[in-house]
Amino acid sequence: MPETKENARLIFAASENCADLRYESGFSAPDPFLWFEVSGQRTIIVSALEFSRAQKECRVGTEVICTEDVKTRFGLRNVPVSSASEQICAISRSLGVHHWQVPDNFPLGLAQKLTKRRIRLSTLNPFSPQRAIKTEAEIAAIQEAVQLAEIGLQCAENILRQSRIGKDNLLFWQNEILTAEILRGEIDAEIARAGGIAQGTICAPGRQGADPHQVGTGAIHAHEPIALDIFPRSKRSGYHGDLTRTWVKGKASDYVWRAFKAVQQAQKNALQALKPGVSGKDIHQGVVDLFKERGFETVMGGGVTPRGFFHSTGHGLGLEVHEAPSLSLRNEAPLQTGHVVTVEPGLYYPEWGGVRLEDVAVLTDTGCRNLTKAPIFLEIP
Amino acid sequence: MPETKENARLIFAASENCADLRYESGFSAPDPFLWFEVSGQRTIIVSALEFSRAQKECRVGTEVICTEDVKTRFGLRNVPVSSASEQICAISRSLGVHHWQVPDNFPLGLAQKLTKRRIRLSTLNPFSPQRAIKTEAEIAAIQEAVQLAEIGLQCAENILRQSRIGKDNLLFWQNEILTAEILRGEIDAEIARAGGIAQGTICAPGRQGADPHQVGTGAIHAHEPIALDIFPRSKRSGYHGDLTRTWVKGKASDYVWRAFKAVQQAQKNALQALKPGVSGKDIHQGVVDLFKERGFETVMGGGVTPRGFFHSTGHGLGLEVHEAPSLSLRNEAPLQTGHVVTVEPGLYYPEWGGVRLEDVAVLTDTGCRNLTKAPIFLEIP
Repeated sequence: MPETKENARLIFAASENCADLRYESGFSAPDPFLWFEVSGQRTIIVSALEFSRAQKECRVGTEVICTEDVKTRFGLRNVPVSSASEQICAISRSLGVHHWQVPDNFPLGLAQKLTKRRIRLSTLNPFSPQRAIKTEAEIAAIQEAVQLAEIGLQCAENILRQSRIGKDNLLFWQNEILTAEILRGEIDAEIARAGGIAQGTICAPGRQGADPHQVGTGAIHAHEPIALDIFPRSKRSGYHGDLTRTWVKGKASDYVWRAFKAVQQAQKNALQALKPGVSGKDIHQGVVDLFKERGFETVMGGGVTPRGFFHSTGHGLGLEVHEAPSLSLRNEAPLQTGHVVTVEPGLYYPEWGGVRLEDVAVLTDTGCRNLTKAPIFLEIP
Repeated sequence: MPETKENARLIFAASENCADLRYESGFSAPDPFLWFEVSGQRTIIVSALEFSRAQKECRVGTEVICTEDVKTRFGLRNVPVSSASEQICAISRSLGVHHWQVPDNFPLGLAQKLTKRRIRLSTLNPFSPQRAIKTEAEIAAIQEAVQLAEIGLQCAENILRQSRIGKDNLLFWQNEILTAEILRGEIDAEIARAGGIAQGTICAPGRQGADPHQVGTGAIHAHEPIALDIFPRSKRSGYHGDLTRTWVKGKASDYVWRAFKAVQQAQKNALQALKPGVSGKDIHQGVVDLFKERGFETVMGGGVTPRGFFHSTGHGLGLEVHEAPSLSLRNEAPLQTGHVVTVEPGLYYPEWGGVRLEDVAVLTDTGCRNLTKAPIFLEIP
């Protein structure tokens, strides 16, 4: 009679895209592999291609088994074990586990095959709740990744300082018209050289900045805002930084200055309010209220282009760029010591663009510590 | 009585990590969003944060709806529609769809919520079978991404040519010891500057090359192989290139030369054999046979470090680095015109490292066209 195992946990995913698996296994791989934990013993099953590397890189105490060996190790008589579902069936029977806890994003196709074989799956959300509470080593890794973002930002500042304002307010750098693509290329190159992967770096000039996730394209002009949002992943640790500054080469108009000052004040207030016990909703509401007080109108829905402040104030940061906890209306839970969050209020108006400022902070017992060193200013002469 | 819709299709994912969704929607976003197709009409539901950008970037003919508007558009009386499951329930009822086709990787947690609400989900694998057959535009995008990889490779070649061999066979570049990290940083920086994102670039010196996915670390020495595997994604198109060369700075030993020649011949044979009607298994078997013929032993499993040739001969390439069709024992289906695959035989021995050569080819009606222009050679003086 097989023993019933409590809390047997299972993941099947590519750890490069599945933060829970990267966190639990310590092993980064581009193709899906199987990880499971039964009675505290952790095991991963990888192809011959990954076997030797997995042995070197995965978390201490994890057993690494090559797919070629699953049959001898777990196979019962003539059970085929070539596919993931067959492997899980063989392992379940061999270990006497008929009920696994899996992440919310466990693939439905595989789940359906297992259910037919009478294996029960319960989803856990979050699967690794401790992921939201960062250890000292994780905070150091995030700080390093923020520094990678700062290296990219410094490169952008240098280029904008070196640029001269030419005909039609176009910027010229190294005798070429400076475009969003060139600026992004230089930022991303500096980050790559320093050990980061920059994916989706935003350099959105002028009106393009009114779309918070618009990466930006074409010529950059003087006297209008440029939104720079840089969120590299460290090649070494897999952790992310996240940093936004909005700059104007030359002179900013009154309305951009007004929006900038409101965003700067909103960010200051949010960082001051950030401490254990306060909720993400409270922090967000503070930002919403300040913008309203200062007369910045927000419109969302109705099929029209959104305007004002229409995203959350921040998000958790770690192995994912966007992870728990969020600083938004949805999150009423109290924040805790060790949470790492971005604080990034913004104001967006399609007529002229947007202003956003983003720092990263870790919650301490009494408040928060800002991990971002980059200074905040608007104009670059 | 609501009409029953045939082939209603649904995806909920982040399109940055879900190639099917990127393919179907044309829209790249870092956070999960809802896409569905009913009676040929495609719709996406995105947050206010993404609304305006989605309208500009998504596939022609796709309707973009802001989450704020789901209630007015699909909500029945007082149905809450804030979560993805509530949105899908409201949409299903409003459109009279009770059965959706979803990708194999549809999240189980969401599926369980929908099943409780009597919504039936069938997984389709592949969800977008036409993704494997590349259009002319897709082939051009892959060719461009291969060129990004070639830009990175050229940078590496220049650095190795400029390096001088110093004490203990260490390489020196710009008066510093040349390490895998420096070489990778320079490759990735050139690719970033040219418009690509290089993630996981492999520069594995010496014995490290015996692990095919080992990215490489530490000093590079003369007279031993360096495996360079570069697979950038184009920032513009989202398509990938993939390219591997193995080089020796200085003089290669006899056994490395022997392995190099076998790998080069295996790749040549595979490229010559590649045509519609042949299976991925046939191509792979040809490589396995050639290595055996030339006396290269392969060992997998048994808990020991694998040696010889222990990965597939190649994989499909497109919005994912590894996608269908595979050139491996698992794939007995005939290859088709428009398939784009890598051809990358390799030989790996823990005593000295590995040799791998990888080109990308598109299948034509009569054979294949090699999209890779980088020449193949072993030694760099």
